[in-house]
Amino acid sequence: MLSREQELIQTLFAPLAATAEGAAGLKDDAAVYRPAAGCEVVMTTDTLVESVHFLPGDPAGLVARKALRVNLSDLAAKGAAPRGYLLSVSLTGEQDETWLKAFAEGLAADQEAYGCVLLGGDTVATPGPFTVTVAAFGDVPEGRAVRRGGARHGDLVYVSGTLGDAGLGLAALRGEDLGPLGEAGRTDLIGHYRLPVPRVELAPSVLAHASAAIDISDGLAGDLGLLCWASGCGARIAVADVPLSESARRIVSHDSKWQETCLTNGDDYEILCSVPPDGAAAFEADAHEAGVPVVRIGEMTREEDGARFLDERGNPLVFASASYSHMR
Amino acid sequence: MLSREQELIQTLFAPLAATAEGAAGLKDDAAVYRPAAGCEVVMTTDTLVESVHFLPGDPAGLVARKALRVNLSDLAAKGAAPRGYLLSVSLTGEQDETWLKAFAEGLAADQEAYGCVLLGGDTVATPGPFTVTVAAFGDVPEGRAVRRGGARHGDLVYVSGTLGDAGLGLAALRGEDLGPLGEAGRTDLIGHYRLPVPRVELAPSVLAHASAAIDISDGLAGDLGLLCWASGCGARIAVADVPLSESARRIVSHDSKWQETCLTNGDDYEILCSVPPDGAAAFEADAHEAGVPVVRIGEMTREEDGARFLDERGNPLVFASASYSHMR
Repeated sequence: MLSREQELIQTLFAPLAATAEGAAGLKDDAAVYRPAAGCEVVMTTDTLVESVHFLPGDPAGLVARKALRVNLSDLAAKGAAPRGYLLSVSLTGEQDETWLKAFAEGLAADQEAYGCVLLGGDTVATPGPFTVTVAAFGDVPEGRAVRRGGARHGDLVYVSGTLGDAGLGLAALRGEDLGPLGEAGRTDLIGHYRLPVPRVELAPSVLAHASAAIDISDGLAGDLGLLCWASGCGARIAVADVPLSESARRIVSHDSKWQETCLTNGDDYEILCSVPPDGAAAFEADAHEAGVPVVRIGEMTREEDGARFLDERGNPLVFASASYSHMR
Repeated sequence: MLSREQELIQTLFAPLAATAEGAAGLKDDAAVYRPAAGCEVVMTTDTLVESVHFLPGDPAGLVARKALRVNLSDLAAKGAAPRGYLLSVSLTGEQDETWLKAFAEGLAADQEAYGCVLLGGDTVATPGPFTVTVAAFGDVPEGRAVRRGGARHGDLVYVSGTLGDAGLGLAALRGEDLGPLGEAGRTDLIGHYRLPVPRVELAPSVLAHASAAIDISDGLAGDLGLLCWASGCGARIAVADVPLSESARRIVSHDSKWQETCLTNGDDYEILCSVPPDGAAAFEADAHEAGVPVVRIGEMTREEDGARFLDERGNPLVFASASYSHMR
């Protein structure tokens, strides 16, 4: 005689743990995880709250995938290969079995895409908003995890992909005027906000070559600031070199106020990393091989120089808000 | 220039991670965990929601310690020695710095008591109730974690401590009539509800001798049911042998309806385990050495017999509710 909680776990979630011996079919309250030989575990956790990190009415599958992906993005920035995750959900009673089934299907799709499995979790009731916490785990060779604090003066600064699409997508969702953006571009930007793409494929290149790395969840300016702070460095970024998508470029050309959105808004989940100059060519080659675009946008400087964004004439930009704060 | 979130993390929480090299001073978004030589990682997670798992107005330090302890209890039931944890908190704005300081102090006290350290976490804002998720990690020798599913027909069933105190404490908090219970007894029972004691000291005895184990978070009847289900066994429990505290015994003598509370209410966080007969004497001796009282209450039977609680005349009890369900 199982409780409704146990029935749900066995029906919807146990299949997600089927290939993980250490998950014991989710019949246990704890999982066992053994790192690969010569490896240690990288662990990270992120919580998403309805109305704060996603919108009420967002499809269940997208919410599930975003919750997993923001964690996989953290692992990628450490150079770790994802392996498994714990899942805690606080249910309000609005999530019926259909909704939960779609939630589990979203997880199943991303498990397949990124090579990780459910290991365990917890299911509770809440009078508040639906809340999901994922803790994700990956392997790195012992002592090799890439930290935020390893950048050195003279290292080159790289980012993956393009920046600002998620921030502009959120602006589009809020009905703000993005100028010449057509419907296809709008849909594309909103997609970036709703469902980030973690740069899991870049992890081996980061592991092999980066001196420090962070995933951009709070905006380039804010996360570069954290990397500088942890490393005891400054940085000089050439704004003209920051990669923008075609849509973002058109929006910024139309009204330059959107440039700050691209540089300071979160949810991009691209990788920002520093690479010693003698490893730069190999890093670029490895990233190319992995199919992930990376662009050099500046270099690390001395701590007293701070983190500076320079326009094409070499003048520093000043931002109204350096980064999104979760604690506002 | 750190955000308020980063300031809080550095001021209140980084000291909790000071001795964990893998936590990198909480300047990173991920931690590194290396199991001891020959060991693997046991991981578990539990979420507590205000008004569901603790009462609004409960002291911050107690909430923090309960959040950690319910996880340490899960580790103990697997035979794992606790080492570290990730902490995710969803803040409503009512938790000011004084409250958060008391919360961190509660964690510090239990880190000291149970030998574990903060490894990382996440801090987010929520419009809903304060919610805390802990994921806890411990080491066990490879392949040796004690599962729920390992019990066999003929194994003896043991529990640690006494059962029902937390459930009766909750009844006392709700103002229910507990008969002859004095103020000291009332305070003691409420203490059991507010702050469970995880049986961390029993973990080595469980590891050495138990065929299956579970911590009692949903009541003896419900959790025995889970152990039977996972193991493909039944069980026969002699109700007269179930250990009760002096207070609980007086309450049950006064009105036998409270017996069901003791057998079916959660939050005891004692260890329920099965031990093969030839290991029973050594298990009892090791538990005694560890200072944890354990009592034999029955034995595992065949699956078709189900999990039965027998009174002194050998008649099976029937419970109104077999266990607390989080999904009510």
